[in-house]
Amino acid sequence: MARRAREAAYVLGSLGTAARDRALSEISSALAEEGEAILSANREDVREAEREGRSSAFLRRLGLDEAKLRGIRESLRELSLLPDPLGEAEGWRRPNGLFITRVRVPLGVVGMIYESRPNVTVDAAGIGIKTGNAVILRGGREALRSNRALVAAIRKGLERAGLPPDAVQLVEDPSREGALEMMRLTGYLDVLIPRGGEGLIRTVMENATVPVIETGTGNCHVYVDEGADEEMALRIVMNAKLSNPAVCNAAEKLLCHRALAPSFLPRALSLLEERGVEIRGCPETRAVFPRAHPASEEDWPREYLDLILGVKVVGGVEEAIAHINRYGTRHSEAIVTRSYERALRFARGVDAACVYINASTRFTDGGEFGFGAEIGISTQKLHARGPMGLRELTTWKYVVYGEGQVRE
Amino acid sequence: MARRAREAAYVLGSLGTAARDRALSEISSALAEEGEAILSANREDVREAEREGRSSAFLRRLGLDEAKLRGIRESLRELSLLPDPLGEAEGWRRPNGLFITRVRVPLGVVGMIYESRPNVTVDAAGIGIKTGNAVILRGGREALRSNRALVAAIRKGLERAGLPPDAVQLVEDPSREGALEMMRLTGYLDVLIPRGGEGLIRTVMENATVPVIETGTGNCHVYVDEGADEEMALRIVMNAKLSNPAVCNAAEKLLCHRALAPSFLPRALSLLEERGVEIRGCPETRAVFPRAHPASEEDWPREYLDLILGVKVVGGVEEAIAHINRYGTRHSEAIVTRSYERALRFARGVDAACVYINASTRFTDGGEFGFGAEIGISTQKLHARGPMGLRELTTWKYVVYGEGQVRE
Repeated sequence: MARRAREAAYVLGSLGTAARDRALSEISSALAEEGEAILSANREDVREAEREGRSSAFLRRLGLDEAKLRGIRESLRELSLLPDPLGEAEGWRRPNGLFITRVRVPLGVVGMIYESRPNVTVDAAGIGIKTGNAVILRGGREALRSNRALVAAIRKGLERAGLPPDAVQLVEDPSREGALEMMRLTGYLDVLIPRGGEGLIRTVMENATVPVIETGTGNCHVYVDEGADEEMALRIVMNAKLSNPAVCNAAEKLLCHRALAPSFLPRALSLLEERGVEIRGCPETRAVFPRAHPASEEDWPREYLDLILGVKVVGGVEEAIAHINRYGTRHSEAIVTRSYERALRFARGVDAACVYINASTRFTDGGEFGFGAEIGISTQKLHARGPMGLRELTTWKYVVYGEGQVRE
Repeated sequence: MARRAREAAYVLGSLGTAARDRALSEISSALAEEGEAILSANREDVREAEREGRSSAFLRRLGLDEAKLRGIRESLRELSLLPDPLGEAEGWRRPNGLFITRVRVPLGVVGMIYESRPNVTVDAAGIGIKTGNAVILRGGREALRSNRALVAAIRKGLERAGLPPDAVQLVEDPSREGALEMMRLTGYLDVLIPRGGEGLIRTVMENATVPVIETGTGNCHVYVDEGADEEMALRIVMNAKLSNPAVCNAAEKLLCHRALAPSFLPRALSLLEERGVEIRGCPETRAVFPRAHPASEEDWPREYLDLILGVKVVGGVEEAIAHINRYGTRHSEAIVTRSYERALRFARGVDAACVYINASTRFTDGGEFGFGAEIGISTQKLHARGPMGLRELTTWKYVVYGEGQVRE
């Protein structure tokens, strides 16, 4: 399978922009034609998940309908309109006359391991094709029928566009051994991207021998500085915690300057509580907001992905930075401040993919950053950091033009 | 140790260019002052290696003398004069007014595992400091005394410059368990770079849970195309094979177009043989150059790092590309041709970090590319590909300037 993907990747990488974009349109059409087959496969997946007693959040992620399918096709069309990152180049001439160029090329074969959302299947395939990569997809066992139907339509679209269908392949083996084998395809997979919960990502990080991009865990903080605009702080905290508590760029912790605690915390935490948020506070938080549950040492590093907020009173920006660097996951961190100096100190001192001054952590997203497409959010520092767009699925190649030069 | 490195990295990362460059000068001075201690420690290492019956090539790599030490100090001075990659930035404004900036920052803590060359110790420390990274070094057991003396001088230099000495630390534990532990310092090491033979690199790739940059293996080919300038081809092949056969960018294989084989091969292979190269040829090679040993299937993927050359006759550029993509290690590949079209086909079709048209593979090197410094040559596609200079030891951080924006 990986060998066929490699062959397909060489074909894809040699195609021009128009051929790859046409394939995206053909796939969109094929998804429309196969719509009934896809939705009926998906209904079976959903029925089985119901029988297994899965949560309603799980069923929502798993389920497809006409509207979702239209949305998926719409993203493919949008993707086909984005500029092609391949072929971007720079170059320089060396004293010996060699002309060294550095050209953007596809990574080659991209593996994706993810959970139950079948829309990831089409997203990943689309972004892969757009960037000239072959993709090997391994979705969750629970979405296998849906993914089979989606991948069949994708491959039909590829064939119609004259591209090798093996550019998109689905791993149907649901076993743990199958996943482990995929993580160890050294020489066949150029990168493996896990998307999903902490457990999945940890398993991949610990077992993969192929290069991996770590995505997603977000224990994000909002630090409200001394003298901050309290209205702005309130708006940002509410947005960061409440606009989508289940995603990685949602705030999990509020750090509040001591001088502000007596005024800001009771007001902010009451409002959050009214909206269903459980507050877990440090002793100083509980002194000004006694209804808070006591926060334990385990709270500070945790990503709740839920209506829970850890709250800590700190003595200043340095303490906030130290706390974030100690417990954060290097995803997205925000300061609300009026101080120019402390804004810069926070931006420099915090070790995270995205640092926000007076804005919500929820903006960490390929679309919000203007990338047009997103394949995940990297929390590692190699290759990609923060929202990954099309460029992050490419690498470069040095092409050196000589006239017979040899090295002395 | 890793925790102290992280602390030191935060300090280093917050320093300006001048402070880091001054540290490099102080280290250079400290190496001069400690010269006698370093050379005497090195003599002990060399004596022990002699007792253990190490090869003369090994002893050459291990040994230091006044001149080598001067060279090491000179590279530190040159490094201090290179432009600072940190702080480079780009930015754009979003429709909602958010100003998104992307700033080049240090990786943080860089681990290096390498073998017996003590000059790598100073190189790695210097490049680390230049780029604002703390480094944890694990050199070969055989160079432990030398590395201890070198790191002591480096730390003295750091202290004098007012930088935390823990920015450069040496792992003194020579055990395999110590190395494995280092490979699994998830959350503490931002990247691990192995430098050395295939065995070392494979061990790291298979066992590391931290992000790794794969370096070095080079099964490099020179393809001599139909109608090529035979004089140029000869010069390039001789240079690629002979100028330093023990390094990763040396040619290991010669692919020759069938039409050229009867004229070119006997001449080229005789000259190589005269210079001590053992020729291992395919049947067609042996038909025109009967003295060649028969090449076996195991020869094609092998990196000899020695005076051996595998030779294969091919039918054209497509066969050459297919052979290289099948057996190559994606390091450096060259074509010698007069055809514009086939030059471009080769450059596009070959999957390697560096592709040369009419030039020797030996140019794959940070210095030759004009990077001023090199930390290794990456054969993977993530983050770094080809010679790694200062930039490859950096990442970026998004700093987003808002005025109270929240996400709808």
